[in-house]
Amino acid sequence: MFTNEEKEAIYKVIFTRRDVRSFLPDPVPEEAVKRIIKAAHHAPSVGFMQPWNFILIESEEIKDRLAWAAEKERRALAIHYEDDGRSTKFLDLKIEGLKEAPLTICVTCDPSRGGSHVLGRNSIPETDMMSTACAIQNMWLASCAEGLAMGWVSFYKKSDVRDILEIPPHIDPVALLSIGYTDVYPKNPILETAKWRKREELDRLLFHNKWSL
Amino acid sequence: MFTNEEKEAIYKVIFTRRDVRSFLPDPVPEEAVKRIIKAAHHAPSVGFMQPWNFILIESEEIKDRLAWAAEKERRALAIHYEDDGRSTKFLDLKIEGLKEAPLTICVTCDPSRGGSHVLGRNSIPETDMMSTACAIQNMWLASCAEGLAMGWVSFYKKSDVRDILEIPPHIDPVALLSIGYTDVYPKNPILETAKWRKREELDRLLFHNKWSL
Repeated sequence: MFTNEEKEAIYKVIFTRRDVRSFLPDPVPEEAVKRIIKAAHHAPSVGFMQPWNFILIESEEIKDRLAWAAEKERRALAIHYEDDGRSTKFLDLKIEGLKEAPLTICVTCDPSRGGSHVLGRNSIPETDMMSTACAIQNMWLASCAEGLAMGWVSFYKKSDVRDILEIPPHIDPVALLSIGYTDVYPKNPILETAKWRKREELDRLLFHNKWSL
Repeated sequence: MFTNEEKEAIYKVIFTRRDVRSFLPDPVPEEAVKRIIKAAHHAPSVGFMQPWNFILIESEEIKDRLAWAAEKERRALAIHYEDDGRSTKFLDLKIEGLKEAPLTICVTCDPSRGGSHVLGRNSIPETDMMSTACAIQNMWLASCAEGLAMGWVSFYKKSDVRDILEIPPHIDPVALLSIGYTDVYPKNPILETAKWRKREELDRLLFHNKWSL
């Protein structure tokens, strides 16, 4: 059971966690990294398959190569926004974040873990990836609790990241996470502040007993 | 920033949260449901697309029909475990949970929300589903903090659930969540206790700078 104070702390981290892309060079304490990864490993997973691995990247050379892969994809993506009118300058910031953050963690998903017939995944195959996303959310909340900032980079070609990190072809590099301290922890989602998109009204996302629009 | 007490509360909920499938009939307070859904809505989402909807199901008739869909799939799945030697009796328990829990929430993912070119999703399409999984993890942690139990049912044919809940064909019903009070909050993952699968050694899931086995 949880006390009111504990409950408040849990909602506080859920509501204040933000995607961050500006980092200080100060190193991330090893003990904090251990706790963040342990939080990930205690995420739920379908059939208890625990499909995740974590590649901790501190090598400047490898971080530069990852930033190169993301930068290439950023330029390719920007072409689709040429006629959009909304600024895409935060795409650049994100790549700066990859270079700035002292630690990058590549989180992978192994769809073969647990054998050919994972309970639950046999019905809904993407539950392996969803389990991995639950692990990432735990890492995000744990980072925030540790006073650390985290950013999720999700634009790159997986084949580039596989090449750079020597990841086998059947393993899915689903996220590049930048972790470090920051002096600008955002109060609101950056894409909201940049007027890219508003937060949806929650009431309009809620239905009772059946879908109804 | 978080105090040590707040940090401990956050790790406590991350480490003690469990998948539950046995529920008491007591109703779930409306205010708690609101807070749990609000926690979901504050999950991160790629391009701030917020692809989720929440169908709150309290109708006994509709819960029965969902349990029917899951039961059908359970029987189909069981065929693949006939020669496995491991007991699949917890598959039954899960369906009992669907009937027992006073509240079922169907969480959906709308891949079309945010238009044709969602930032990030343009590179990795499954980030919509991963965002929805982050929302589900927030719901799980919030439920636990509220003293409530939650179970994720992931075996059903999506087309059955679409039919029952009148969900449009392009919307993905990614999870059926049972929520209620329980008198048996498990200390360890049920599949671990049932000796279905062990928790992986965390050190073996960690790599440095590149994949290495």
